[in-house]
Amino acid sequence: MSIDKFLEESQQIIIESVTPELDGGRYAVKRVTGDCVEVQADIFRDGHDLIAAALKYRVMGTTEWQETPMLKFDNDRWRAEFPVMNIARYEYTIEAWNDRFKTWQNDMRKRVEANQVAPSDVLEGVALVEKAFPRIQSPHHSGQVETLLKTVRQTADPVAAGGLFLSEDVTRLMDEYPDRSFSSHYRTLEIIVDPLLARFSAWYEFFPRSQSPEPGRSGTFVDCIDQLPRVAEMGFDVLYLPPIHPIGRSNRKGPNNSLDAGPHDPGSPWAIGNENGGHKAIEPSLGTFEDFDRLVKAAEKLGIAVALDFAIQCSPDHPYVKSHPEWFFIRPDGTIKYAENPPKKYQDIYPINFYCDNREALWTELMSVVQFWCQRGIKVFRVDNPHTKALPFWEWLIAEIKREFPETIFLAEAFTRPKVMRSLGKAGFSQSYTYFTWRNGRAELTEYLTELCQSEMKDYFRGNLWPNTPDILHEFLQEGGLPAFRLRLVLAATLSSTYGIYSGYELGINTPVKAGSEEYLNSDKYQINHVDWSQPHNLGGFIRQVNQARRQNQALQYYDNLRFYQSGNNDKLLVYGKTTPDRANNVLVVVNLDPHQAQESWIGVPFWEWGFSEHEPYQVHDLLSGAIYKWQGEYNFVRLDPAVQPAHIFVVTKG
Amino acid sequence: MSIDKFLEESQQIIIESVTPELDGGRYAVKRVTGDCVEVQADIFRDGHDLIAAALKYRVMGTTEWQETPMLKFDNDRWRAEFPVMNIARYEYTIEAWNDRFKTWQNDMRKRVEANQVAPSDVLEGVALVEKAFPRIQSPHHSGQVETLLKTVRQTADPVAAGGLFLSEDVTRLMDEYPDRSFSSHYRTLEIIVDPLLARFSAWYEFFPRSQSPEPGRSGTFVDCIDQLPRVAEMGFDVLYLPPIHPIGRSNRKGPNNSLDAGPHDPGSPWAIGNENGGHKAIEPSLGTFEDFDRLVKAAEKLGIAVALDFAIQCSPDHPYVKSHPEWFFIRPDGTIKYAENPPKKYQDIYPINFYCDNREALWTELMSVVQFWCQRGIKVFRVDNPHTKALPFWEWLIAEIKREFPETIFLAEAFTRPKVMRSLGKAGFSQSYTYFTWRNGRAELTEYLTELCQSEMKDYFRGNLWPNTPDILHEFLQEGGLPAFRLRLVLAATLSSTYGIYSGYELGINTPVKAGSEEYLNSDKYQINHVDWSQPHNLGGFIRQVNQARRQNQALQYYDNLRFYQSGNNDKLLVYGKTTPDRANNVLVVVNLDPHQAQESWIGVPFWEWGFSEHEPYQVHDLLSGAIYKWQGEYNFVRLDPAVQPAHIFVVTKG
Repeated sequence: MSIDKFLEESQQIIIESVTPELDGGRYAVKRVTGDCVEVQADIFRDGHDLIAAALKYRVMGTTEWQETPMLKFDNDRWRAEFPVMNIARYEYTIEAWNDRFKTWQNDMRKRVEANQVAPSDVLEGVALVEKAFPRIQSPHHSGQVETLLKTVRQTADPVAAGGLFLSEDVTRLMDEYPDRSFSSHYRTLEIIVDPLLARFSAWYEFFPRSQSPEPGRSGTFVDCIDQLPRVAEMGFDVLYLPPIHPIGRSNRKGPNNSLDAGPHDPGSPWAIGNENGGHKAIEPSLGTFEDFDRLVKAAEKLGIAVALDFAIQCSPDHPYVKSHPEWFFIRPDGTIKYAENPPKKYQDIYPINFYCDNREALWTELMSVVQFWCQRGIKVFRVDNPHTKALPFWEWLIAEIKREFPETIFLAEAFTRPKVMRSLGKAGFSQSYTYFTWRNGRAELTEYLTELCQSEMKDYFRGNLWPNTPDILHEFLQEGGLPAFRLRLVLAATLSSTYGIYSGYELGINTPVKAGSEEYLNSDKYQINHVDWSQPHNLGGFIRQVNQARRQNQALQYYDNLRFYQSGNNDKLLVYGKTTPDRANNVLVVVNLDPHQAQESWIGVPFWEWGFSEHEPYQVHDLLSGAIYKWQGEYNFVRLDPAVQPAHIFVVTKG
Repeated sequence: MSIDKFLEESQQIIIESVTPELDGGRYAVKRVTGDCVEVQADIFRDGHDLIAAALKYRVMGTTEWQETPMLKFDNDRWRAEFPVMNIARYEYTIEAWNDRFKTWQNDMRKRVEANQVAPSDVLEGVALVEKAFPRIQSPHHSGQVETLLKTVRQTADPVAAGGLFLSEDVTRLMDEYPDRSFSSHYRTLEIIVDPLLARFSAWYEFFPRSQSPEPGRSGTFVDCIDQLPRVAEMGFDVLYLPPIHPIGRSNRKGPNNSLDAGPHDPGSPWAIGNENGGHKAIEPSLGTFEDFDRLVKAAEKLGIAVALDFAIQCSPDHPYVKSHPEWFFIRPDGTIKYAENPPKKYQDIYPINFYCDNREALWTELMSVVQFWCQRGIKVFRVDNPHTKALPFWEWLIAEIKREFPETIFLAEAFTRPKVMRSLGKAGFSQSYTYFTWRNGRAELTEYLTELCQSEMKDYFRGNLWPNTPDILHEFLQEGGLPAFRLRLVLAATLSSTYGIYSGYELGINTPVKAGSEEYLNSDKYQINHVDWSQPHNLGGFIRQVNQARRQNQALQYYDNLRFYQSGNNDKLLVYGKTTPDRANNVLVVVNLDPHQAQESWIGVPFWEWGFSEHEPYQVHDLLSGAIYKWQGEYNFVRLDPAVQPAHIFVVTKG
């Protein structure tokens, strides 16, 4: 390799250890609109010459870079930040160059101070300024430079002449027109900028078919509309509906996952497709497209986004099976393979072969499904079991959809090995389910949430915490009753900025299909249920309080600001806090993890993080009980009786 | 982008978090011959299909990859290792593929166990084996496969037929010929494999001109030859000589860095070049090329490598100044710039302009200097102030030289900002000077050596520890006297596998040029000194003991195996250990960091790391005193009196 070719590749100025950066730039990091993106990097070169650097950024697809100067703050570490105001994919990079003028100027300052300036030293400065001249774009600045050079030439004393270059005006002027012809450039990195809802959202899941006020009749979209005020009243932002498409008839499942469905059993909505259509059709018993549109609009008016389920699997009756058998796995005998985990068989489901020969048509068709619902106003999708589908497919699909509909949010319903879950976040999913449902102790909650919110994961994986789902009724809820429901709700809603519950939680429903199972008895998954929502809601008011606390406190709307604090030796108490970047809003949460017994302890309160001194009292206002306490210093006492109140959600203010 | 193009770039199987890997593969990591390189990676894909992976490696420039299977050991983490036996640049990468046969075989095993095998299930296996057939290279294996297929076809019962595929023989056979047509490939990474000397070396530095037995006369290479047995006797492997080239006459420095050199003052050897030549010439008063060659050969016979200094700077009298003025910095008045740190001037030195227009000729000429000395048998270079030269130049030069002379070792004499020092290691320097000389307390030694030997730096930065150099006589040695010299030597020689001392250390010479200075009085840098080496060496025997301990204990020859242990509350005692990878050799070192007072404490001994149980006595044999103690369990007592012995270097063996 020629030396110049080598030099081109191995740049003069080293730019490295850039944050944020995910896997060497292989994947985009995530932010939401309004965020300020802070970028840091090690930037340095050999020798003692001064360097300058700029952070450059733009919305992808636009041509002009915007830029902001980077500043060195410590040990060759530089920083700058830029705001992301558009819901779009951004790119950013760093450019660094030798600041020849400032290097010379610094030397000149020392020479002038030491009264040791040679005429040649001055001429070097003249040459640098003359070289900058063609880069100057403002006539005013050109005039300033001409005056400077004229004055220098008229000044016989080299010390005096050198001194003319040292003013702040000259520095500013030369900073404006640097010689960047030998710049070093970092690779280009990407950011997905989502709407705030991708980070801050409270989800509520229900099955439309179970929303009928009359027992025995299938609920419809119209019935769902009637439920919206109740959902809004509790303070939810997202209403997630399991698949609303026609349900397969072959090998349909009966109540409680039985294999012998009766003629009137509705089947599992995840067995998608029958003679009425597939992923772009609506199950007729739920209503029409017009009804659906009305539901979406009515929800929107109440500030609720309707989320659909995107489950890529087909019942044997799905239209795809006839039109595109090649999209499935074909057995040697020519039949299509149903889902299996030998020796278990799931004969009501045909999985898709993402890498089949006709994948171009398959992937395009699947994308058109999402486009179809986006065009009907859907902005949020919960994706069923994405880890059993092709990872590259998700990376491709999400990028394509967000190019056309940038505000779209995808929640990954993946419960699998940790690295596979992370890879879905890297592939572009806006949010992901987590292991939260199975983390109940102080140590495991602290460890897991620290990983989610403080490790590198915070840049690409937004953990959506669900205390229950139609698939998971944890033993903790079965055993702990309403106090357990309350405390798990506070944890989900305040540990993460995004969480959700499955309908019935507000009533404390907790009967499993059998002892030792995490499945609900008579689950909505396999049958139409009827709930009398006019009965008093055990937890409705409480949920409303918690969601109100989230809406009124910006600190709870951030994801990566979670910090854990001490709770003495009582490991039944979990203490944590969240603070806005400007420290204007500070929330401290204490949760009694024990649904059975009152717990008490001195807790460690990080008053210094809020800018208070050791001797300054501060006020903690409990948003759940309304009580206000004056506290001071690090150690303060709390006692929480689960029969009365499972947690404090304190807003902390200057006392 | 078409879907297939996208799929090509975004591979089916994810391979990430590979170790070792430096800055995403931008730089090579380092090992020495005989090492086993362990490579780990996260390797996984969506879904439940089984995958397989291979670690591939080769000497760069050769065409055939060698490979070894990787094995999953935990949570989608895989590992494998390969030996590096050549002194060469290696490359390695990872390939992973879907193991379709094993996936099918696993399912079949479950089907057979459940007695639920469909004929179609068997046919899938037949198809997979038939597809493998063309890949089979051994006729014996082809025969086995034919027999298998024939037997399967003759077996009517699907359960029995399926069972035929489950034998270990079939597994091994199919493992041998996997379908790798849709493999995922990781990027190619590089390793510089050095000779052992790059990791394990004891350096001794002296000025040839001070080696004369007659006061007043300049020492010669012949005098150096006479000193070799003394150096070998102390146990050193590398004899490093400051520049041996003709010394400039313009603005020559006099004794103690004075500006008024007398006519007979020899000047600083770092002001290179005069009418007798430059970097490819020898200062005539030192002798001839023949003398030099004799010195190199004589040293080699004693197991000592002669190291030269590569200092890229020129005196105003260097031949380059006339032949290539364009390689220097030219002032506007046409003169060449001398080195400056305004208002300080170093008029005896002209720095080089590495990015000058004629850089192609400059870089090539500088490389030819190193080649010149390599051709004369020099394998070790100490590079003067490399951080003030172009970083890309070093990356280019070291790679070029090591392509031709792979065994060459470069030591970076850089004392500058930490990230610049690291970048020299990344650029290819085999070893580097460190801040060790200024680290004397327990906390700072522990922190710094942990960074050097246990952080990512261990893969590319080998810290060479020097208790003194001609430029640094630390206050600790000035104040602490011989006990300080002893303890600093033990630290340097046992904390790192590579260390060095500057001549005079063995006599405890510690007079500074003035109070508060780290410069030696009457430094060899500016004058010819005469030392009567026949006088008793205060520390010669001690140094010999320590170097012998290093040679006889493999554990001290590794760099990244340093571990620190507890020394109770006595922060004057530093406790650390080194163990070979096979645990065959275990060394425990205890150093009293206080040169003035005896110190004692219970220390924490990590008996479990050596495979001993709590109740098992073990033997510690002090290589300095010869004493042998029986110890047991974690806590044992030590007392070290600096007047008697500054340290224990224990070899630990089963009691």
